[in-house]
Amino acid sequence: MTGDRTDPLAPPLADFDLDHARTLRRGYPEAVLCDAKTPDQVRRIAAECRERATGAVLFTRADEERAAAALAELPDARHLLEADLVVWPPHPPAPSGGLVVVLSAGTSDLPVAREAEVTARYLGRRTELVVDVGVAGLHRVLGHLELLRTARAVVVAAGMDGALPSVVAGLVPSPVVAVPTSVGYGASLGGIAALLTMLNSCAPGVAVVNIDNGYGAGHLAAQIAAPTSQPDA
Amino acid sequence: MTGDRTDPLAPPLADFDLDHARTLRRGYPEAVLCDAKTPDQVRRIAAECRERATGAVLFTRADEERAAAALAELPDARHLLEADLVVWPPHPPAPSGGLVVVLSAGTSDLPVAREAEVTARYLGRRTELVVDVGVAGLHRVLGHLELLRTARAVVVAAGMDGALPSVVAGLVPSPVVAVPTSVGYGASLGGIAALLTMLNSCAPGVAVVNIDNGYGAGHLAAQIAAPTSQPDA
Amino acid sequence: MTGDRTDPLAPPLADFDLDHARTLRRGYPEAVLCDAKTPDQVRRIAAECRERATGAVLFTRADEERAAAALAELPDARHLLEADLVVWPPHPPAPSGGLVVVLSAGTSDLPVAREAEVTARYLGRRTELVVDVGVAGLHRVLGHLELLRTARAVVVAAGMDGALPSVVAGLVPSPVVAVPTSVGYGASLGGIAALLTMLNSCAPGVAVVNIDNGYGAGHLAAQIAAPTSQPDA
Amino acid sequence: MTGDRTDPLAPPLADFDLDHARTLRRGYPEAVLCDAKTPDQVRRIAAECRERATGAVLFTRADEERAAAALAELPDARHLLEADLVVWPPHPPAPSGGLVVVLSAGTSDLPVAREAEVTARYLGRRTELVVDVGVAGLHRVLGHLELLRTARAVVVAAGMDGALPSVVAGLVPSPVVAVPTSVGYGASLGGIAALLTMLNSCAPGVAVVNIDNGYGAGHLAAQIAAPTSQPDA
Amino acid sequence: MTGDRTDPLAPPLADFDLDHARTLRRGYPEAVLCDAKTPDQVRRIAAECRERATGAVLFTRADEERAAAALAELPDARHLLEADLVVWPPHPPAPSGGLVVVLSAGTSDLPVAREAEVTARYLGRRTELVVDVGVAGLHRVLGHLELLRTARAVVVAAGMDGALPSVVAGLVPSPVVAVPTSVGYGASLGGIAALLTMLNSCAPGVAVVNIDNGYGAGHLAAQIAAPTSQPDA
Amino acid sequence: MTGDRTDPLAPPLADFDLDHARTLRRGYPEAVLCDAKTPDQVRRIAAECRERATGAVLFTRADEERAAAALAELPDARHLLEADLVVWPPHPPAPSGGLVVVLSAGTSDLPVAREAEVTARYLGRRTELVVDVGVAGLHRVLGHLELLRTARAVVVAAGMDGALPSVVAGLVPSPVVAVPTSVGYGASLGGIAALLTMLNSCAPGVAVVNIDNGYGAGHLAAQIAAPTSQPDA
Amino acid sequence: MTGDRTDPLAPPLADFDLDHARTLRRGYPEAVLCDAKTPDQVRRIAAECRERATGAVLFTRADEERAAAALAELPDARHLLEADLVVWPPHPPAPSGGLVVVLSAGTSDLPVAREAEVTARYLGRRTELVVDVGVAGLHRVLGHLELLRTARAVVVAAGMDGALPSVVAGLVPSPVVAVPTSVGYGASLGGIAALLTMLNSCAPGVAVVNIDNGYGAGHLAAQIAAPTSQPDA
Amino acid sequence: MTGDRTDPLAPPLADFDLDHARTLRRGYPEAVLCDAKTPDQVRRIAAECRERATGAVLFTRADEERAAAALAELPDARHLLEADLVVWPPHPPAPSGGLVVVLSAGTSDLPVAREAEVTARYLGRRTELVVDVGVAGLHRVLGHLELLRTARAVVVAAGMDGALPSVVAGLVPSPVVAVPTSVGYGASLGGIAALLTMLNSCAPGVAVVNIDNGYGAGHLAAQIAAPTSQPDA
Repeated sequence: MTGDRTDPLAPPLADFDLDHARTLRRGYPEAVLCDAKTPDQVRRIAAECRERATGAVLFTRADEERAAAALAELPDARHLLEADLVVWPPHPPAPSGGLVVVLSAGTSDLPVAREAEVTARYLGRRTELVVDVGVAGLHRVLGHLELLRTARAVVVAAGMDGALPSVVAGLVPSPVVAVPTSVGYGASLGGIAALLTMLNSCAPGVAVVNIDNGYGAGHLAAQIAAPTSQPDA
Repeated sequence: MTGDRTDPLAPPLADFDLDHARTLRRGYPEAVLCDAKTPDQVRRIAAECRERATGAVLFTRADEERAAAALAELPDARHLLEADLVVWPPHPPAPSGGLVVVLSAGTSDLPVAREAEVTARYLGRRTELVVDVGVAGLHRVLGHLELLRTARAVVVAAGMDGALPSVVAGLVPSPVVAVPTSVGYGASLGGIAALLTMLNSCAPGVAVVNIDNGYGAGHLAAQIAAPTSQPDA
Repeated sequence: MTGDRTDPLAPPLADFDLDHARTLRRGYPEAVLCDAKTPDQVRRIAAECRERATGAVLFTRADEERAAAALAELPDARHLLEADLVVWPPHPPAPSGGLVVVLSAGTSDLPVAREAEVTARYLGRRTELVVDVGVAGLHRVLGHLELLRTARAVVVAAGMDGALPSVVAGLVPSPVVAVPTSVGYGASLGGIAALLTMLNSCAPGVAVVNIDNGYGAGHLAAQIAAPTSQPDA
Repeated sequence: MTGDRTDPLAPPLADFDLDHARTLRRGYPEAVLCDAKTPDQVRRIAAECRERATGAVLFTRADEERAAAALAELPDARHLLEADLVVWPPHPPAPSGGLVVVLSAGTSDLPVAREAEVTARYLGRRTELVVDVGVAGLHRVLGHLELLRTARAVVVAAGMDGALPSVVAGLVPSPVVAVPTSVGYGASLGGIAALLTMLNSCAPGVAVVNIDNGYGAGHLAAQIAAPTSQPDA
Repeated sequence: MTGDRTDPLAPPLADFDLDHARTLRRGYPEAVLCDAKTPDQVRRIAAECRERATGAVLFTRADEERAAAALAELPDARHLLEADLVVWPPHPPAPSGGLVVVLSAGTSDLPVAREAEVTARYLGRRTELVVDVGVAGLHRVLGHLELLRTARAVVVAAGMDGALPSVVAGLVPSPVVAVPTSVGYGASLGGIAALLTMLNSCAPGVAVVNIDNGYGAGHLAAQIAAPTSQPDA
Repeated sequence: MTGDRTDPLAPPLADFDLDHARTLRRGYPEAVLCDAKTPDQVRRIAAECRERATGAVLFTRADEERAAAALAELPDARHLLEADLVVWPPHPPAPSGGLVVVLSAGTSDLPVAREAEVTARYLGRRTELVVDVGVAGLHRVLGHLELLRTARAVVVAAGMDGALPSVVAGLVPSPVVAVPTSVGYGASLGGIAALLTMLNSCAPGVAVVNIDNGYGAGHLAAQIAAPTSQPDA
Repeated sequence: MTGDRTDPLAPPLADFDLDHARTLRRGYPEAVLCDAKTPDQVRRIAAECRERATGAVLFTRADEERAAAALAELPDARHLLEADLVVWPPHPPAPSGGLVVVLSAGTSDLPVAREAEVTARYLGRRTELVVDVGVAGLHRVLGHLELLRTARAVVVAAGMDGALPSVVAGLVPSPVVAVPTSVGYGASLGGIAALLTMLNSCAPGVAVVNIDNGYGAGHLAAQIAAPTSQPDA
Repeated sequence: MTGDRTDPLAPPLADFDLDHARTLRRGYPEAVLCDAKTPDQVRRIAAECRERATGAVLFTRADEERAAAALAELPDARHLLEADLVVWPPHPPAPSGGLVVVLSAGTSDLPVAREAEVTARYLGRRTELVVDVGVAGLHRVLGHLELLRTARAVVVAAGMDGALPSVVAGLVPSPVVAVPTSVGYGASLGGIAALLTMLNSCAPGVAVVNIDNGYGAGHLAAQIAAPTSQPDA
């Protein structure tokens, strides 16, 4: 039988090539989205990180199997299970810039909120995480107002009606990064309903990212709250 | 030329046949949705109402031309321009049942809110109308709490993010009738975004009706707030 | 290996915080939507209920594993398997208000219909459940007319064409709470087709809730049929 | 200025070429969908019909201007304004085959229903047209049962919830041709809601055609009710 | 522990109630859609059929487990595995009416085509089944023209582009029942692409049913090809 | 005739109530979205601004008629026609915070880009506007790299493929505010295609706002580039 | 009044900057999509072309007003009205490469087909245009087989079911460029249905472009049929 | 028990009938899409290939089980696991025509890119495969410019934002075959977002195929880069 994985006739293929230049250019760690990669691909990328990377790396959406693949090559990395993240090096940098506050509308939105919080922390920001502050219980939102108003960026993870970012954006001067989650009944359409709510916020100041994209939300918040490198006007 | 509107070979067609039986059976006025009818069809239906109807009639979505057609046959009807409604007879019945409070999230949602308010009033309920209480300005919602808690049904008309019904439903014991409006930027999708938000409300007690369907919202609220005809358990 | 679930560097996280205030404020039991939570989260919430809750709690969408988690902390709770509900305390309150009739269009819609029926019953209403009354067999609908007309709220669970609520709303004076189910062939789009049908009902008086949301339907019906606390006009 | 409509460098273009062969092969008149054609194109096609056609022609979706263009070349054609049809020759053939009954759920669905009825008549069937028999007034449907059961094909035009074909298909042995109309509020999505309802009919025997396609519905019904040319089994 | 499946406080529930009246009224066997029912529900319905049914029954979408449930109560039923059907009684009636030809565009559309063919056969029609006649190989369609032109109804099952029904409808005088299948790459959208193609057929005479609904297609074809009970015009 | 605009029986309605509190609380001007309001409503709001507002006001989506209505009450306001904005007071505040650079992918995206640029300027930021830098001509993007890297926030307005924000976000350290425009052929779906592209950006750091929402994009950018009020970590 | 179109405070804006470099780099004329530009913008771009362009320019989607604006600056340009194109210089280059055959499925698809044909001709290819060859009349497709097989690229413009490209791709060895048109009834969804059909073609070799994008189709076909500049393998 | 897979009453069914005529007519190998077929169907088709086929065959989407079924009948076939392809005969033909370059935007898009590369190679083209060149790292795209400009067709496989084909098409004179992949977060909609991006490319010259359809992309590219059989103009 001639079936085999190594195709001797295939054209040669360039090595996996992490975009280290981008990392340096933009000043943020590289991220490796694991869930669309095979464990073997994750392992090979981790090996390359060990050998060549000059900065930090985050492995996002890393389930047990892919996390193990990364840890096999980077044994001093840290696996944060509740956020499905592997971070390397294991400790976040010393914080700089402003505070990032992350709100989770419900318990079910917590994994996405955690991914955002950890990402912002490993990108160098101070962070706070607050859980279960949906709009159906307004007093809980209002009870956190003082904290919210000290943030330089607020991340809100919400599924179902996705209404919380509108309410928060009406209360604080900072930008609100809204991350819809895929939590909900049928007509939530896997998070599309919450996504649309957020895009249509009647309060300005809402920055929307993709469904369940806690990493992207945390990254954007970290950029917004970054220490100012350019002088003010 | 043989082209003509009256087709001599067409099979005979039954008269327009308003469903008077339903009116009697359900105890509510008949409604005639005008915008998908020609002015001539509206006029003929109005004439039939005059001759045969035993109860009240509402002509909804009646623009100037269709309202004039109805008034030509029912000269004592009342035309409420801001709600695009023609009502006949011109005065609402004496109120019975509970209070219906109608909230308009923004000025742009006002025509739909008015249609709901007038419909509930002409179906026999006491009504209140409150304008411009969007979630981006929470203190305005909270300022009306006392009124909201005396209502037996609350109608909320909201476009854009459609988040107001969730917030209100978390604050009051009565059912909230949520009517999405087609107000908003591109991703509001003509009201679909607000509709989905409302269907995914994280607070229970939200009854959703069709986009811009102020008549339906007012009718449903009037039914909910109707005087109790059946004995309690 | 440093991968671990407890992240020593994470910011402190507030306790799970059931919205007991809302329960008291609105007068209805708290509900815990289980299917987007881990069994451990369900268990911790159940423990908190036992220690602090002053009123009833419903655990919805509780599969075997999550139901067991709730019962581990609340051993006198009742698990109603066919409705995927855990209720605590185990007995519904004495009924008050009007009758809620729940119709299931087909056998396949029965789990959603049951969830609505049990919810309304545990919120304090008298209930009746009628099965397999789809519009393709009109005589079955008509055979229940007398019962339907004594209801103060009718819940209709229907998938496929979702046409039953329109037919029922044309026959009864009470509001009809329409809950689309995800039952059907490809173009049912997981319940979207039935949802749209219900939103476009040609009979007024149809209150739509989310797909498969039997809990929401039962809750709304219980609110509509609640004993009147506010005086009539 | 060199801008001109006749492009001297363009490749030669074949004449418009009505598919007369198909007409003969299938035994039904040719149809010319006018609304996506310029009046001049309609006129040229009409001229070609006059010179070459051996059978009948229907010009569908013919507004005043396009109808005039057709009549300019075919002065003995008949313009049926309420169905936006021009038919040539002006009289339908002697009827053969079974009866086609056309139902219009509401007054607003009437233009589509008329187009279906006229098409079936000009394809050689006996026809009946019944108006305003929506499911919200079931007794009206039931009042036409005897007529419906003598039909060999029933066409149902319905917008909004599109529920009527399901109800009718549960009552009659003949196939029901369901034609959704674009009548309705926002979430009718221009007829998509009714289309989905019909495709998901819980009664078998519903043949669905495109939104507002009265011509297609009438043609299909005429084929179903055609006299039997092939022997029975 | 009080969790149990039998809820002693639940209201009494009517028996499963097959619509035998409809069967008699419309003259066709009853069908039981199995895939949304539990095996136990299927078994109970089969038992009821055995005890009370006067005519034939088809169990559609019956996987191994549900088929076994039906056969446990109806041991002389026939299980046709490739069509996922259980038929009872096991033999189709003597054929009457016209011929039904079923085309399967590709091998992958075969299960749906088989379901249609068997359904039409058990509803009393002569049938022919032809496989793998997609439009990409036109000569295969043309090679079956003679057979197609003797049919009184043609069923076409096609996924991917869903173009075959248009081509066939342009070649035959009989109605074409088009059943889209969920076969295809991503943008086939689970059959929606093929469904839309069929609804937009540029040839009239195409009757569309739901995605993968081979039963519905076969039933509709059997109705179209039924022996004529009403006299011709 | 009793038809009239003033409905003597209507319940009293609260005055229009600009949310001045929010303005003060969040520190940004109030905005009035004009296109969903009547000119008369715009005029009344402008009058209220004149009498009571303590800060600046932007009238967005102000066509000629609505702009005139605003200017009638606020004659010293400025009408910026190419951005459809009326600003009051007429001069922007002295700039503070960082630089906001606005990119317009094509000439057709310019109105949205201008609306963003003017908004950011009137919210107190220094701004630069660069036109016609689509990804199909990469050298044009690259030619502006130096400017882009000095920005504290970059706004990118793009229709069609919406690919520009991804490319820019890969090149700069600042957050990129992506505003999709409704420019494009059929499958652009009125901006939905560009919106989805932006939400799926393969580079992190992209903050998405609603289609054609130049105001929202400029507001968000101004917030991101605001002078830092809270101390760094 | 200070409202004016020239905003003295606006940042300076770079000139319109046609991408002449791209033209030279890729070897094809520049195109200016007019329908999303103001006539004034079109005129200014035309002036810039006259002064600086070294190659040809096509103004696509140029209605009467925009065409006049282009001709005002480029008086020797040619306006091809039926394709809504202005071409400059007025004559196409001498043809090179292979033949491009353009098929229009129906008369209504002709404007898009013409735009494709003219574009390919002005990009330097020999072209043929064939009209009204829909799949409902297969013999017309088959009658052009010899011509189709001599083409190096075939463009097929089709609305409604969009089935023609699949059929053609099964018959010819060359790539088929499929351009869906927005022609059709409701469920054609403005061309989305035809677009999906083409993407799901069961014959390989179909290259899909955007709805109504005749320019893009002609451009792609011209590239495919270009004279070979690189040596064969 | 009468349940059985072979239905003795079923009409006889024609053999599977590979379209060998098409293969010869178009000059390309036959392809068998395996994932919608049972292993047994694959085996029977492979047997038929062995006995009758005159040319090459590709089995696409062949998982382990289906590949084994094919190899059981064609033991000298080659199984290329990373592309899920079985090819027979095992060696590609000697290359002819121009070069096909395949780009994979990310590691996750690699399986689709491989399928395209292998398909083009087995259809007789020279190929090159380049990995991980997403638009977020522009320098990687630019680093391959020389190779890209020698290609006669470029295939780009990209998920997420799908922006790479637009960028490439702006840089090369050859057609770009864009194949969207289903890689991405929630709002990627299983590849629909990337598909729309590609259809809306602001650079002409992009030929779009179905989501994840690497086979179709490779086939189209092979046709575009085929040796010229027809003379140039």
